Amino acid sequence: MHEKAHSKQTIKLGAPPMIGAFMFPHLFKQFKDAHPSIDIEIFEHGSSQMTQFVDDYTLDMAIIILNDLPLSQYNMVHIYDTELLYCTNAASPFAGLDPVSLSDIQYSPLILMKEGSYQNPVIKARFAEQQLAPNVILYSNQVHTIKNFIKNDFASAFILKEALDEQDHSVTIPLSEPMPIQIGLIWKKKIHLSSHALTFIKFIQKYEFK
Amino acid sequence: MHEKAHSKQTIKLGAPPMIGAFMFPHLFKQFKDAHPSIDIEIFEHGSSQMTQFVDDYTLDMAIIILNDLPLSQYNMVHIYDTELLYCTNAASPFAGLDPVSLSDIQYSPLILMKEGSYQNPVIKARFAEQQLAPNVILYSNQVHTIKNFIKNDFASAFILKEALDEQDHSVTIPLSEPMPIQIGLIWKKKIHLSSHALTFIKFIQKYEFK
Repeated sequence: MHEKAHSKQTIKLGAPPMIGAFMFPHLFKQFKDAHPSIDIEIFEHGSSQMTQFVDDYTLDMAIIILNDLPLSQYNMVHIYDTELLYCTNAASPFAGLDPVSLSDIQYSPLILMKEGSYQNPVIKARFAEQQLAPNVILYSNQVHTIKNFIKNDFASAFILKEALDEQDHSVTIPLSEPMPIQIGLIWKKKIHLSSHALTFIKFIQKYEFK
Repeated sequence: MHEKAHSKQTIKLGAPPMIGAFMFPHLFKQFKDAHPSIDIEIFEHGSSQMTQFVDDYTLDMAIIILNDLPLSQYNMVHIYDTELLYCTNAASPFAGLDPVSLSDIQYSPLILMKEGSYQNPVIKARFAEQQLAPNVILYSNQVHTIKNFIKNDFASAFILKEALDEQDHSVTIPLSEPMPIQIGLIWKKKIHLSSHALTFIKFIQKYEFK
C-alpha cells in the first residue's frame, strides 16, 4: 500500500471540509478494512466547487450536500440527513437561546465558509431575505480554525450537527427557521467507472453513518 | 464591519492550514482588537503554493514556513520557531517512544499533507534518504480531518508542536532527526502596500506568539 495514492488504483473522492471532518474518518476506516488494496485520495473543496470537479473528471465522485443540486445530471446515492446549526461558545450570551434567529445573532462576529461552499450563499440569502447583514469577520474553510475561533469565543459559525466534539467548549443551537441538509455521493452520468469506484459505490449503498 | 471582507479595505493574508489552525485565532483577535476597522481575509494553502500567490499578487502577504524558501525574493518578518513532531494516538505502540525514527514508523498508516505543503516533499525526502517508503493512506490538508484520524487511532501524522490540543487523545513525539520549523510573514519586494497592510506588518513585528 506504500505510496499508491497517486497511482491508477486510487479513487479520487471529493468531500467538503465539514463533511470530511466528521464522517470521513469512520467511512474511510470501514472501507479500508473491507478493501485494503484500494486507495482513496480525498479532495477537500466546497460542495458547489465539487460538482465542477466531477463534471470535468478531476474527481471520480464526491460526497456533497445534495440540497439545491441539479441532480438530473448525476448518479446519486443518498447517505445521510442532518442539519446546519448555529455554533457558539458555551459562555456566549446566545448559548442559552433555543432556537436562535438570524436577527438575534446579526451583530455577533461570524465565521462563514468561503464562496464555493454550500453554506456561504445560502446563509447570506437567508440574512438578505430578512433585510439583515451578517457580521462576517472571517471566511475560512478550515474546520479546525472555525472551531478554534468558537472555542476562544472570538466568533460563532454555522456547522453541521455532527461536526462538534463534546470537548469543544461550545454549544450548537437549532435555528428558528431550520436548515436541513442532505448528504450523498454523486458521480457523473454516462461515464465508465473503474472497478474500484464501483466497489466504493456498493460500499456506500450499504454504509450507515451512526 | 458588515460584509467588508471582499472590499478594498481587506488584507488578503495567506496562512497554511496547520499554522492557521493554532496561531491565527489569537493573532486575528489581537489584531482586530487593536484595529477593528481593518478586515482580514484568510487564504489557506500550503507554504509552497502560497509563495506563488504572493508572487502573482493574489495575496498581499502570507504567514508561511520559511525553511528552504528563496528569501532574497521577499521582505520578511520572522515570527516564531517551532518543530514538526510525529503525532500518534495515546494507545498506539509508538506512543511510548521518545524519540521516534522513520524506520520505527515506516509501516504505520500515515496521513500526509498534500503536495504544495511544506511537509509533503520534506518528509518524503527524509524517508527516501534512508531507503524507506512511508505508508501513506491519505493525503489531506484539513487539520481537523488529520486529528480525527489520530484520535480514532486510524493513522498518525506529522504536525507542528503547537497544533495539538490536550483533549485530542494523542501524543506528539520528537523525531530522532529533528525537523525545526521557522514561521514568518513574507510579502513581495518592491510593491506598494496599502496602509492597512503596513499596519498589519507593524503589528506582526511586535506580535509574540505565546
